Amino acid sequence: MSKEMWAYLIALAVSLLAIGVAVWMARWVKKLKSENAKIAYVSSLIKSGANTFLKREYTILAVFAGILFVFILLFLPKPIWQVGDEVGVNRVLPNLAMALSYLIGTIFSGIAGKIGIDIATIANVKSAEAATKGIKPSFMAGFRGGAVMGMAVVASCLLGVTLVFWATYGWTGNARVLIGFSFGASSLALFAKAGGGIFTKTADISADLVGKVELSIPEDDPRNPAVIADNVGDNVGDVAGMGADLFDSNVASLAAALVLAIALDPKYIPLVFLFATAGLLSSIIGVATANIGKHGNPTRALNSSTYITTGIYFVLTAVVTVLFDFVLDAGTGHSYWFIWGSTVLGLLVGVVIGLATDYFTDDSRKPVHMVATASESGPAFTILSGISYGFLSVFPAMVGIGISALGSYLLTANISATMPATAGMFGISMAAVGMLSIVGMIISNDAYGPIVDNARGLVEMGNLGEEALEITDKLDSAGNTVKAVTKGFAIGAAGLTVIALLGAFMSEANALGAGLTGFDVMDPVIFFGLLVGAAVPAVFSALLMLGVNRNAQRMIKEIHRQFNDIPGLKDGQAGVEPEYDKCIDIATKGALKELVVAGLFAILVTIAVGFIGGVKAIGGFLVGNIVVGLLLALFMSNSGGLWDNTKKYVESGHHGGKGSFAHKAAVTGDTVGDPFKDTAGPSINTQITVVSLVSSLMAYIFILYSIF
Amino acid sequence: MSKEMWAYLIALAVSLLAIGVAVWMARWVKKLKSENAKIAYVSSLIKSGANTFLKREYTILAVFAGILFVFILLFLPKPIWQVGDEVGVNRVLPNLAMALSYLIGTIFSGIAGKIGIDIATIANVKSAEAATKGIKPSFMAGFRGGAVMGMAVVASCLLGVTLVFWATYGWTGNARVLIGFSFGASSLALFAKAGGGIFTKTADISADLVGKVELSIPEDDPRNPAVIADNVGDNVGDVAGMGADLFDSNVASLAAALVLAIALDPKYIPLVFLFATAGLLSSIIGVATANIGKHGNPTRALNSSTYITTGIYFVLTAVVTVLFDFVLDAGTGHSYWFIWGSTVLGLLVGVVIGLATDYFTDDSRKPVHMVATASESGPAFTILSGISYGFLSVFPAMVGIGISALGSYLLTANISATMPATAGMFGISMAAVGMLSIVGMIISNDAYGPIVDNARGLVEMGNLGEEALEITDKLDSAGNTVKAVTKGFAIGAAGLTVIALLGAFMSEANALGAGLTGFDVMDPVIFFGLLVGAAVPAVFSALLMLGVNRNAQRMIKEIHRQFNDIPGLKDGQAGVEPEYDKCIDIATKGALKELVVAGLFAILVTIAVGFIGGVKAIGGFLVGNIVVGLLLALFMSNSGGLWDNTKKYVESGHHGGKGSFAHKAAVTGDTVGDPFKDTAGPSINTQITVVSLVSSLMAYIFILYSIF
Repeated sequence: MSKEMWAYLIALAVSLLAIGVAVWMARWVKKLKSENAKIAYVSSLIKSGANTFLKREYTILAVFAGILFVFILLFLPKPIWQVGDEVGVNRVLPNLAMALSYLIGTIFSGIAGKIGIDIATIANVKSAEAATKGIKPSFMAGFRGGAVMGMAVVASCLLGVTLVFWATYGWTGNARVLIGFSFGASSLALFAKAGGGIFTKTADISADLVGKVELSIPEDDPRNPAVIADNVGDNVGDVAGMGADLFDSNVASLAAALVLAIALDPKYIPLVFLFATAGLLSSIIGVATANIGKHGNPTRALNSSTYITTGIYFVLTAVVTVLFDFVLDAGTGHSYWFIWGSTVLGLLVGVVIGLATDYFTDDSRKPVHMVATASESGPAFTILSGISYGFLSVFPAMVGIGISALGSYLLTANISATMPATAGMFGISMAAVGMLSIVGMIISNDAYGPIVDNARGLVEMGNLGEEALEITDKLDSAGNTVKAVTKGFAIGAAGLTVIALLGAFMSEANALGAGLTGFDVMDPVIFFGLLVGAAVPAVFSALLMLGVNRNAQRMIKEIHRQFNDIPGLKDGQAGVEPEYDKCIDIATKGALKELVVAGLFAILVTIAVGFIGGVKAIGGFLVGNIVVGLLLALFMSNSGGLWDNTKKYVESGHHGGKGSFAHKAAVTGDTVGDPFKDTAGPSINTQITVVSLVSSLMAYIFILYSIF
Repeated sequence: MSKEMWAYLIALAVSLLAIGVAVWMARWVKKLKSENAKIAYVSSLIKSGANTFLKREYTILAVFAGILFVFILLFLPKPIWQVGDEVGVNRVLPNLAMALSYLIGTIFSGIAGKIGIDIATIANVKSAEAATKGIKPSFMAGFRGGAVMGMAVVASCLLGVTLVFWATYGWTGNARVLIGFSFGASSLALFAKAGGGIFTKTADISADLVGKVELSIPEDDPRNPAVIADNVGDNVGDVAGMGADLFDSNVASLAAALVLAIALDPKYIPLVFLFATAGLLSSIIGVATANIGKHGNPTRALNSSTYITTGIYFVLTAVVTVLFDFVLDAGTGHSYWFIWGSTVLGLLVGVVIGLATDYFTDDSRKPVHMVATASESGPAFTILSGISYGFLSVFPAMVGIGISALGSYLLTANISATMPATAGMFGISMAAVGMLSIVGMIISNDAYGPIVDNARGLVEMGNLGEEALEITDKLDSAGNTVKAVTKGFAIGAAGLTVIALLGAFMSEANALGAGLTGFDVMDPVIFFGLLVGAAVPAVFSALLMLGVNRNAQRMIKEIHRQFNDIPGLKDGQAGVEPEYDKCIDIATKGALKELVVAGLFAILVTIAVGFIGGVKAIGGFLVGNIVVGLLLALFMSNSGGLWDNTKKYVESGHHGGKGSFAHKAAVTGDTVGDPFKDTAGPSINTQITVVSLVSSLMAYIFILYSIF
């Protein structure tokens, strides 16, 4: 059996193991007791709301995917009238494979999202009721619920990549079909992340504005018609959206690494698969061993499992490298060590970026304290100082990404005497694979957040007592702290991935005859692309934020209507209930409408630039898009997190505490930060990946038809 | 006499003519009547405050310039131990010339700034008192006051460039010494724009916060200890700062064009001078003929003189081109027409960018209306929608700059068969010269703004009556409207200029033996530079905004102290006066302290990147810096302008008018927008130019000493 075959089988085996672990954990969570009728009722509302959103989202997505399926069938990777000398079935096979692979990518990612939401809407109930028994069972319910999502995403990702690559590499000799798969995952992520992001913030902002600000009723008060939509939003935005986002980055990093490995030397293909598999295996171990003492610290529990995963990954990949070097290549494969070095460098820089993010958003550090102090002078100063620290926070991450890209390139450039540039880009792609290796663990930690956030709400709605509320508060706060680290990680990883995709794009374009030697920014066509590409993430995030704004206005109107029209609702008469579904409906429709505009804008501008300036302009376009996209994503995520924690810091009694002037200002900051950190910021990642993949897919068409 | 000599003489003659016009207009303004004692007193406070700031600024600058003088003498353009075979005085002459040229650049720009402030602090009084006689005399006083600044800046700029180039080109054969001159202008601009920007917003914000928000006393109320500092700020930030900024861009565009003309074909040198001269001549005519009917519309008067200037420039340069083509080159010089085309394209795109900026900030357009509507939901929505429109506004300008760069490159690339790339970059530099051609007019319009803004305050303090207040309000509002157009223009011009500087940098580095063929972003060293360079404008603006924040806190403390400690001040007892100078002192010291940190950060990171990655990394660094710098400058200037006009729109009676909930939200937006549009946004231009010039100057050192 060939080395590739071994690698495929091991990858499949570990993927299945991860699925097994996910199933086991899902069962474990489901078996936990839940008996509170009120909570069961509310939870069923959340569940059905989330499913309504998913159903409608997937319906629109199906139409979109159907159109793209036909488009790909006709045009990609080459227009059907451009297939040359092929005969018979071979004339359509490449396009058909690409189109199918695209669909599979969408479906795999979609299924992972659905699984994640299903378990999250169960785990929140279990975590809430377990809170009456102590912090440990409540934590475990939340964490294992999140872990199901983590395992499902990474396993389906590795499974899909392995199957698609295995099925097509043999007869095509390239990884082009895999780019179709990656694009499928990406277009789903665009819907899930941007759509979910608009949904969740629409509901959150509207619920807060009418509930907390106008009527002074508490958060999660069941009288509020938007309260269920708010909880649904946590699930569709933070669980499903974030899962799809990281599925997308993960697939893209593997696709880029494989495209470059093929261009460089196919002997590296099994290594890519085994490194990715090692990451999944490490995450499985990390997730399975995660635990918290009876009176333990949830933040420490979450972080320590991340570090354990990182350590295991380090060892496992070293073992794989030893195997390749000394066993398979009989001690002549020193090049593998340079690749290993790149991967480890990627992972380490990921940790550093995560810590830097933490500094700028942690409520025990200077930035949060400064913004809280500034809030005493009013909301304008909350905003100004928050934006300033957000801008500052960009620096360590950008330099970090720059260093890991430069370092991994230099490490591997020397492994090929004839193609140092391709080898260097391959090193960057492996750094991205390294940074994303522990993504299973990252998703678990990240999905934990909204589950315990929901649990907190359920404890309140179900009147489970002060102690349980305190416990879920503690769990929720740990979720927020850990989120900062994982978010920094996710953006850093996306940054390296898209740099690798840029290399993959050039390699692809050249394989199709573009004859590129690089992207010289002194070439005016490339510079033109650069400027346009740089403007796109700004416009894209503006469209999403304006979408949230518009949508929230609609929902606020509906909340006002209900409070006015439903007798007894405002006073909380027994038996009177708001029409929760109306708010869910508004959030759903609006989110999908607004996201389509933003997504189409990004894609159409890419295509326009391609037809104007060809693949050269596209190269510049991608560079501008990546650089500004990273900058804005970091800025928006970090300043949003900073404002969120500032508000919590003030609420915990500083600068006058709740209700003070500073608190009001801090709430304004948090409201601005909400769409920053949960809608626009994280969606930019997806936007970059989408346009990178559109560029790779359309490369041949741009080579054929462009003005310059 | 050679063609160059003719061009130099014509440039000098027109510069002297402009100085003559400035002197005449200054006399005209001074001759206007002013007899109100109260106004005279307040105006003397403003004048002495502005001079205090200038004096302290220039003192620090002198130290800074002195250090740089020695540094240049030792190291630039080549370290003194690297002068090769030169003997005697020739061993030190290049460095000495560069160092002197640097000093002259600083001094020329400094003098222009001083002249501008002197006349502005006279014209505001004249304009205020003339307002009692009608709109026409008041407008003319404001406009001609501004025009003195416009003429002084452009004349001293052209004069300086001509003299330095004339004196050094003959024996050096290059324009390197001129880059020293440009750097001198730039480092002054950094002090004037960033320092003035911090000063003006410190005073503005503190005065508003304590005066309008806490104590509910009107704007410009003489009891407010910060009110004089606020008026001083208008002069040092908006008049002197903006003048220095455009002096800087103007010199840089000429320096870039001359560096590239020399590399391409020295026969284009006279053309560069004559095109720049044509711009100044057009501005002189535009300024001299500007007028307003008795009941006229000041906005129309300002805009129509801009369009007249543009038209005259179009014709004059066509005449120059005919002369070069048919008379001097006997009909064989068709290449001149392509250069003319680039220049005209630059100017036209400048106008389009100005109009796009206008759309996003004009209070009769959708963006202002939408932000005003959003304000009804509270300050968070004012901010979110303002940021969104600010992001959107980036698109037309970036695409416009991209198109003008691409178009002008393509127009001229074919004029040289052997060096099409250099010819293309020369085209871009001439587009920048074109965009900046009418800069005399632009500065006049821009300086008009703070003069009439001050006049409005003086009318209020001097109790000149409702009618005069209405007139100055109208003049002030016209200033704000026109400012949007001129700001878009200034940023667009800076954008093209720095692109041209990038070309000049490569040309310079190659002349010094770097052997660059371009900046390929697939080279990891260049990509590393790109990422770091992209982060710098964000950090730079963050440091400036945090500086404003810190400084405002200090001043607010002082205002509170005065209101508490000075008996009778709060009640406005006759004869009781606040200690205005204390506030001016705080603003001055703080501004200079904070600006040094931000400026040093940008310069030191540039140097660090140069020593790490050499000229290649610097190329990437500049590209990242330019692209993100333009993006952030446009975003911040436009969203700031948008919030300013939204506040005014609400105050004019919409959405509840003054004192309403929407108004409070709009005021928060305006406060956030103030440092955006008057401190950070416009300072980014200067930051980009400074690091571009530092890079050009240090090129040889980076070639000698770098890690990669």
